[in-house]
Amino acid sequence: MNDMTSPTALRRPFPDACLAALRAIVGDRLSVAQAVREHHGHDESPYPDVLPDAVIFAQSTEEVAAVARICNTYHVPIVAYGAGSSLEGHLLPVQGGVTLDMSGMNAVVAVNAGDFTATVQAGVTRKQLNEYLRDTGLFFPVDPGADASLGGMAATRASGTNAVRYGTMRENVVSLTVVTADGRVVRTARRAPKSSAGYDLTRIFVGSEGTLGLITEVTVKLYPQPEAVSAAVCNFPSLGEAVDSVIEIMQAGVPVARVEFMDEHAVRSVNRYSKLDLRETPLLLFEFHGSTAGVQEQAAAVQAIVHEHGGMDFEWAHRPEERNRLWAARHNAYFAGLQLRPGCRSSTTDVCVPISALAECVRETARDLAAAPFPTTIVGHVGDGNFHVLMLLDPDSEDEWQASERINHALVRRAIAADGTCTGEHGVGLHKMGFLAEEHGEDALELMRGLKHAFDPNNILNPGKIISW
Amino acid sequence: MNDMTSPTALRRPFPDACLAALRAIVGDRLSVAQAVREHHGHDESPYPDVLPDAVIFAQSTEEVAAVARICNTYHVPIVAYGAGSSLEGHLLPVQGGVTLDMSGMNAVVAVNAGDFTATVQAGVTRKQLNEYLRDTGLFFPVDPGADASLGGMAATRASGTNAVRYGTMRENVVSLTVVTADGRVVRTARRAPKSSAGYDLTRIFVGSEGTLGLITEVTVKLYPQPEAVSAAVCNFPSLGEAVDSVIEIMQAGVPVARVEFMDEHAVRSVNRYSKLDLRETPLLLFEFHGSTAGVQEQAAAVQAIVHEHGGMDFEWAHRPEERNRLWAARHNAYFAGLQLRPGCRSSTTDVCVPISALAECVRETARDLAAAPFPTTIVGHVGDGNFHVLMLLDPDSEDEWQASERINHALVRRAIAADGTCTGEHGVGLHKMGFLAEEHGEDALELMRGLKHAFDPNNILNPGKIISW
Repeated sequence: MNDMTSPTALRRPFPDACLAALRAIVGDRLSVAQAVREHHGHDESPYPDVLPDAVIFAQSTEEVAAVARICNTYHVPIVAYGAGSSLEGHLLPVQGGVTLDMSGMNAVVAVNAGDFTATVQAGVTRKQLNEYLRDTGLFFPVDPGADASLGGMAATRASGTNAVRYGTMRENVVSLTVVTADGRVVRTARRAPKSSAGYDLTRIFVGSEGTLGLITEVTVKLYPQPEAVSAAVCNFPSLGEAVDSVIEIMQAGVPVARVEFMDEHAVRSVNRYSKLDLRETPLLLFEFHGSTAGVQEQAAAVQAIVHEHGGMDFEWAHRPEERNRLWAARHNAYFAGLQLRPGCRSSTTDVCVPISALAECVRETARDLAAAPFPTTIVGHVGDGNFHVLMLLDPDSEDEWQASERINHALVRRAIAADGTCTGEHGVGLHKMGFLAEEHGEDALELMRGLKHAFDPNNILNPGKIISW
Repeated sequence: MNDMTSPTALRRPFPDACLAALRAIVGDRLSVAQAVREHHGHDESPYPDVLPDAVIFAQSTEEVAAVARICNTYHVPIVAYGAGSSLEGHLLPVQGGVTLDMSGMNAVVAVNAGDFTATVQAGVTRKQLNEYLRDTGLFFPVDPGADASLGGMAATRASGTNAVRYGTMRENVVSLTVVTADGRVVRTARRAPKSSAGYDLTRIFVGSEGTLGLITEVTVKLYPQPEAVSAAVCNFPSLGEAVDSVIEIMQAGVPVARVEFMDEHAVRSVNRYSKLDLRETPLLLFEFHGSTAGVQEQAAAVQAIVHEHGGMDFEWAHRPEERNRLWAARHNAYFAGLQLRPGCRSSTTDVCVPISALAECVRETARDLAAAPFPTTIVGHVGDGNFHVLMLLDPDSEDEWQASERINHALVRRAIAADGTCTGEHGVGLHKMGFLAEEHGEDALELMRGLKHAFDPNNILNPGKIISW
């Protein structure tokens, strides 16, 4: 495991000649100002800040390619930066170098409504895209908690509350424009719905966290806005009964669009933060998409199942405002949780297990949490077998940090033992590197390392992340 | 483009010491008999046979690993062989060496019904798996024309008639057990429904056609058998109207499970071969999956759309026997087509385009075919923008072969110009290698080549396929 000490000893030289060559390309869109570097040396992880040597605000794929060629020549690291919302230290430039801020590359390049695809620059955020699509009758479903950039979402293989129905970035990226370590521009696939034409370059870059190439454009799948949408909240006497309901719903093949779990602590935090009055017990939050008849059918099937598991107060939210308020509250669960302990440092876990192992995994985790010396919440995309524990730590207490790490390790080992993964959606970054050998085995890591060496022989792309060089 | 001359000049030495070492591992499950080598030197492509030096009938992952270690030491090629149904020359051992017949590795390892996954050895065929699943209420949807092996289907990123609703092997492989070129055994992923834990090794091997590793086990997604299934056939005055209907159905977001196109020649061949009496005009064959109400809803939506496009005789096939007969006929369309010209050599095309480009692409292709000096049929998984032309050639006519290649090239270029792909599901093999640069660009091919070199430094895994060394 990585500890909290950032490996600043690994910083590489940043030659003046490199700085000059970069300035010649991007002019005053390169900054070495302390405030700008600080802003880009910080994410939502529990790690301390690590500052880049310089920040470049990119404007085009060609410019990114020119920057890559220069950095590759000087062996200077490049870290791509989207919305700064990563949770495991992905964007911390642990070996120094250039942070490439993609937020200015935020144009929607094309919406091909007839083909259900949109092509956007990497800095476009998921909310921006959906705002743009509003009048087309289409939407883009992948929704991590933060309003992340599409480039960042592709890079971390993000998902969110809709994944149970619509899939993750793995399923929803059609094609990428990628700048390679040596500054070539590659489009990974065409827009055809399927292809058997060679190696799946798209899926190689999705989830590669900026270590194999720099994503500058993303083509994603779109979906028709459903004719009918309905949401419901249901409380449960215990966590186990809520999770067991989800397992039965999935096994019955009900095509729920969303099914989210919150434990009583999460509900309390959300009530306070979003001024709701949800009953403070474990609860499930559902959404159903389909035709009017289809939605009713799904809801009836779900209602019958939750009733058998002691579900109480199955409450409908039919009106869009009501629904949006509930889902906004769910999306803000992370920020709501932070408010349970003002001034805290947070650590989040992110395991995902086969659904048959979910109930046991959540129950054992809750047992660990009951003994924790700090406040915690559990929320989960439980339809996918994915859940998070948010741990709210005293920033000055090494004991609390160590206790949180012990809980995290125990949880990851429990998930791996159940044929699950150490990260369902947050990614590896720095914090999960130590678990990959346990999850995949050394031989699989050796293949990953071979891929990294082939695609980035000078190790300039987000070095020190995912796997050791 | 490759021509029909098989590059036998490229055969590598097959040292006696290698043969002896292999025999020491597999005993009399290694054969050098002419008949066995002939059987394994032949696929459904238009290429002449190319014989391996030896055939090994594999029995376990560990044995495959031992074989790989030996072949890697002697730089002897290994070609994995499943059901022998590949269409583009994938399995022809153009550099000689060992063909590894996986058909004996045909055990269903585990069915995790609660998690909707099954793990099988690579030699299990899709029909065998579905037979095995019959009483579980689950099924595996991916259905290429042939009763292919799951290992082969993963290796070619196969799809079929259900892909429009359930996805291809890209979406349906959860995890693979793979033997690397140097004989290590890697499991590419856990069974969790999603993961962000490192590079997507699973998707790297899916579609790699045996050039990056040897797939020995496959874990796939399963789906609940739908509560209700209904099928329908609809005739159209012209090909254009049939295809336009499909485009509108997809754009309306109707979740059809299958929508297949046949031109009048394909219908005629199927009528003869499967003793049906379908009206011999362009037709669409639909299947709807869902609840009883859902299926009716889908069918009504489709019926309204086809009616607007001149669809005639919308005929239902409600009874399972009737439906199965129709779909068996569709699956046999390739063999039915061959009977239009007994003794012919066939060549199949396999483009896939964004759905908005489909009508124009099919129309222009039909124009080319009208001038062809041989019989042809068009069939297509048109809901995915994927269609095939079957060309029935006089095996002794070089002119006909050249004419078929011109049609294929024109079609591929048309597809690529429309942002489509040279192969939707058949794979690259030998026949499509020449198109990959046009489709992906040289820089993308260079990345693919880097991956190949990293995973198979001695080029022993199905050498001479997908990309040149």
